[in-house]
This record gives sequence, structure tokens and C-alpha cells, in this order.
Amino acid sequence: MKFSCEKALLQGAISITARAVSPKSSIPALEGILLEAGQQLQLTGYNLETGIRTTVQAEIAQQGALVLSARLFGEIVRKLPDDMITFSTDGLMVNIKCGLSEFNIMGIDPEEFPELPSVNQENAFSIFQKDLKSMISQTLFAVSDNESRPIHTGSLFEVGENGLTVVSVDGYRLALRREAIRSRTGENSFSFVVPGSALGEVEKICADSEEEATVTQGARHILFQIGQTMLVSRRLEGEFLNYRQSIPRNNAIKVEGDTKELLTTIDRVSLIINENNKSPLRCVFGDGVLRISTKTAIGDAQDRCPITGDGKELEIGFNNRYLMDALKAAPAQRVRLELQTGVSPCVILPTEGEENFLYMVLPVRLKAGE
Amino acid sequence: MKFSCEKALLQGAISITARAVSPKSSIPALEGILLEAGQQLQLTGYNLETGIRTTVQAEIAQQGALVLSARLFGEIVRKLPDDMITFSTDGLMVNIKCGLSEFNIMGIDPEEFPELPSVNQENAFSIFQKDLKSMISQTLFAVSDNESRPIHTGSLFEVGENGLTVVSVDGYRLALRREAIRSRTGENSFSFVVPGSALGEVEKICADSEEEATVTQGARHILFQIGQTMLVSRRLEGEFLNYRQSIPRNNAIKVEGDTKELLTTIDRVSLIINENNKSPLRCVFGDGVLRISTKTAIGDAQDRCPITGDGKELEIGFNNRYLMDALKAAPAQRVRLELQTGVSPCVILPTEGEENFLYMVLPVRLKAGE
Repeated sequence: MKFSCEKALLQGAISITARAVSPKSSIPALEGILLEAGQQLQLTGYNLETGIRTTVQAEIAQQGALVLSARLFGEIVRKLPDDMITFSTDGLMVNIKCGLSEFNIMGIDPEEFPELPSVNQENAFSIFQKDLKSMISQTLFAVSDNESRPIHTGSLFEVGENGLTVVSVDGYRLALRREAIRSRTGENSFSFVVPGSALGEVEKICADSEEEATVTQGARHILFQIGQTMLVSRRLEGEFLNYRQSIPRNNAIKVEGDTKELLTTIDRVSLIINENNKSPLRCVFGDGVLRISTKTAIGDAQDRCPITGDGKELEIGFNNRYLMDALKAAPAQRVRLELQTGVSPCVILPTEGEENFLYMVLPVRLKAGE
Repeated sequence: MKFSCEKALLQGAISITARAVSPKSSIPALEGILLEAGQQLQLTGYNLETGIRTTVQAEIAQQGALVLSARLFGEIVRKLPDDMITFSTDGLMVNIKCGLSEFNIMGIDPEEFPELPSVNQENAFSIFQKDLKSMISQTLFAVSDNESRPIHTGSLFEVGENGLTVVSVDGYRLALRREAIRSRTGENSFSFVVPGSALGEVEKICADSEEEATVTQGARHILFQIGQTMLVSRRLEGEFLNYRQSIPRNNAIKVEGDTKELLTTIDRVSLIINENNKSPLRCVFGDGVLRISTKTAIGDAQDRCPITGDGKELEIGFNNRYLMDALKAAPAQRVRLELQTGVSPCVILPTEGEENFLYMVLPVRLKAGE
């Protein structure tokens, strides 16, 4: 194998594919990036859960393949001057030259690198990268980290008449985002569940632009094609929560508030809550004002935040983290909070326009004196 | 105690004094900041090694004192709105109010806070804060972390005709910086050793300005007065290396190079050196070129850097870290490297002007094949 490639292009490709490389594995090839010089130069990282492959512009003098330690390969390329880098192999030994610098390091046999699963196309859709990116970032926080319900360690993707709906749940809260898609092939409506870890990578690969990403549903895998990069992930199998039934509708109490103001107030009162001193937030929704207080062994804190509407003095307890996560994610300056009783969930919605997001947080029972 | 203070001023004072607070102590008062409202508001942190006291502008309604957990106090003030904050105590309970926010937290009896040592003035000097700051930052890296020679875990401060000289040594390298001082009282020349940990804090407190800092030598302590802030540290006792005798003079080989270029080249070759694969750098000083190479179990690397002068093909081994630390610290675009033989130290000096810095790095024996 012999090829030359611009340092900057190669560095970008390494940083993308390295995200799917195992940091530590008993199989050395899994700690590496597969370089394949065919018609084009391809880099692949694959930790047996998520695989990322990207194509880089290169002058290929001799075809071939080799696996290089992702860490060492990345560091060498990063520290070389901004110039053309030439790679040439002699067996498993690779010579890396750039300007006056020269490295000889040992690679790994490409035969030891596992093959990426192939995705037989069934259903597919395309969407703006910026939309896919924001949908993931605004729902990923509610994915469960509890391995006893594996299906909820991923997000549900539902494609249908309304476009794409992404839903995450963890038993205490729910996050839902909806956006239009660009095109769809296959069935009229279909759905699948993608592991949260893979979505975290998809989010990073997507640009904040109106270039399209294509998502293909295979029998056991999902393929994301994002520009020159593809990411393949296994699907999670199992019964995802019937989320439509879980969201309370016709809530009697509806108030509105400034997202950032609500967040700052909760964050401040939360100062006296920590791992050793946990207490719920006591929220009292008054007429035009939300009073938030809490009390722990450290002391007590109270604060107020203006709202629009009358909460009829409804008193309800919340886990401060869950409320903050939802408000941080909400893509709106103002939100509507919908409540029913002190023991029913709080629903957070946009104050106007389409329902392109919905967050739900379950309440926590308040004890006297908290 | 009752006082009001601007949030921004208080936040600044907390961040300075918190640096001398024990992160974890069996005595809760040592994890706290002492607040004293007298004629002025004073904040003090003291971990029994280093003490920092600073004065803040405040409206004092009732005098008094209290110790507050540095972490909690800092977090509360940081998250309060940009406004006046009012503190009022009732016994050990303190009420903190700002805008609509209110906290009640328990403080600690100020009697439990240790007294700062008083420094009886013997000798003192003053220096621009920016000079003191750069002298510390450019020598601190060579302070020893080996507790078996406690005296070398600090830097030597020598005050005399030539101004201030600061020297750090750790047995493998030496760092020296020299600057003019503004004024001097007491003996004509005096010297003392300040612990590296205290100097790290002094460096951060000093502004990059021509405001003066005053340094006072006490019998057992050193006092740094920097604007509204004072830092007191114990002195290290013992026999500091006679550094003048250790620096070789009249070196036969003198070459010059670009500091950044030397650093980049060494950094690159060092890529294949790590904790598990240690090897010295093999440096060959040729005529107009420095060739650097190394070989470890990972592979081999070689690079070249242009120099001015002829090194007569002198071959010498170095610990890459030590060479890089010195070049990173050197306050000059170009440096002169002085060498004698492959087993004598390398001296790094400014290429022109006064000798305001001098670094020395001891060589490492090269084995065949390295």
C-alpha cells in the first residue's frame, strides 16, 4: 500500500472514525483504524457495536490495507506539519513521511479487523443533517442507562405521515422531538430503536447544515449516511413503551414561563442539593409566580420565578436534575408547563406553533419539612 | 455580622482565597473561608501551609466573623444574580439574600479557624507583578517533587546587587531566571526558599501588570503582598544546591536555534515515547542541522531541525520531557545551546542580551540501538 494525503483531510477522517474505536480491547485490531487504499482511501473504526467508515481524498500509488493503532496514528498525524503525508508499507511495517519527519511503526494485519455488517435496504428516509442533529441532542439525555430494560437504552425513531418522531424514556421522564423529513422510501410508516451510544456519534458527525443525511433500516442494523461518512449500528430489539398512552392530555393547569429564567432559578435552589443531601424541589405554582424551595441538611433555599397564568397554588415535588435536563434541551425561549395534580406528571411544551417537542417529568412525593 | 457586597467583587475574592483552602480536611473549618467584617470585609483561606487573605469593598452594617464552606459559599455566590448580596448571621446560621433568592445555611465558629502566622519584617523587596509572575512560571516546572530532599521542593529566591534571581533544581535539570527589582530594604543581599505550591498561587494572584508586589522575609515565613491580597507561606529550611558551581561554563560547542521549531521537532519525535516505552532522544548536533531520533518497541522516529553553528557531530542523549519543559519555559524566540561532551549538561541561554534566564538539562546515557 502506498498513498499520499493532505494532513488536514486525514486528521479530520481519523477524528471521526476514531470515535467508533474501542479504547481498550483484548483484540488489538479493535483498538485500531482500518486503512484501505482502493479506488479511494477509506478509514474504518468498528467496536462491534457501532462502525464508522469515511472516505478521504488521496493519491493512491499502490492499493492495499493495514490496521494502525488509532491513538498513535492520530497523534502522529496531528503533530506532523501541514503538508502532504506519504504512507508506504513493507509487510506490516508502515513508513510515514512528511517534510523532514519520518516514522516507522508496526501495523496490524487487516485480516484481523472485523467486517462491518451489511445493511439490506428495507425502509429509508432522508432528513436535513441539522434537524437530525438537534433531534438527537434534545432527546438523548432521557435515554435510560439501566441495562435491565435494554430497549430503553436507545431512542425510538418513528417515521410516518408527520415526519420523524424521536422518543427517549427512562421511567422517570420522557423526551419527544418531531421534524419534517425530506423523503421516504419503503413502507408508509416504520419504526426502530437505535442505541443511545450510536446516536451520540451520529449527533457529532452531522453538520449544522441543510445537507441531507439518509437513514436506512435493515433487518438487524441501522445505517446512517452522512456526507462522506457512514455509521452502522445494531438495532435494539424489544417492546418500546407505548408513549402516546403515557402522556396525560387535558391537563387542568397551564402556565407559561421563560425557559432560561426557570432554569436559572431551579439551578440556584439546587445548590444545596447534592449526592449526600438529596431532596426534591418543592414547587408551588401560584398566580403569576412559581415559588421553588428545598431543604437539606446543608440548609434551605427559596426562590421565585415569574410565570404567566394561575397555577391555583398547586404544590408538586420534582427531582431537580430531571426538570433542568428538560428545560436545557427545550428548543424554545418560552415553554408551557401543563399540570393536573401533585402526583401526576408535568408536561413541557412549546408555547406556540407545532408540537415539535414534548418533555414529561414525573413528580416526586414531598415529605413534610422538605 | 451583617454586610452587603457586590456579587462580582465577592466572587473574585472567593476565587482567590479558596486557593488556600484544604479541599478535604478532618477539621471542617479548614475547608472553609473565614469572613471577617470589621472596618472592611476580609476573606481568609488557610490550609496550614499557605494562607491567603484579601480585602473586599462592602457595606458593613454589623461587625462579626464566621467561617463558611468554601465550596458551597463559592457556588451560591456564583449562581446568584449580578446584584448586591446581603449576609446576616443569627448565631452560626447565615441568611444570604439577593434579588428574589434566599439561602439559610449553617456556618462554622470562627474560633475554630487557625490564626495566620504573623511575619516580623526583616528584609523585603518590591518587584513588578508581571516580573514576579513570569519568573515563577518559567522556573516552577524544575522544582523537585521528591520529598526526600524537601529543600528542593521549593525555589531559591536570591536578592542582591543583580536584582532577584529565582532558581529551581530537581537533580536532573536546573531553571534560573533573573529580573531587576524596584526597591529593597534590610540587608544588601539575602535569600530564602519558598515552597513550589505557594509559588503556584502567587503566580496566579499576580497581575500581568507593572503594579508592584512586595515580598517580606520573616524568620520562618514569607509574606507576599499583591494589591489587596496577601499570601503567607512557611519557608523551607535546609541547604539549597550551590547552583553556581553546578553550571558548566566555557562550553566548547555553541549553536543557536528557533525555540518553537526545536520544541515542535522534539515533540514529534517523542510521539513513540510513552510510560511503557521509554527511550532517550538521540540528538546529533551537525553543521547547521540538529538530527533527533529515537527508537522504542512502538517503532522509530527521526526528524531534523535547522540550527546556526556547527555541533561537530556531537551525539548526546536527553530525556525528551526535560528538554521540552525548558524550551517551553524559555522566554525567547531563539535560544543558544551550549554543550561540551556527550556526558556533560546542556545549557540553554538567550541568544542575546542579559542572561535573564538559564536552563540546564543533564544528559542520559545512550545505549546502542536506541
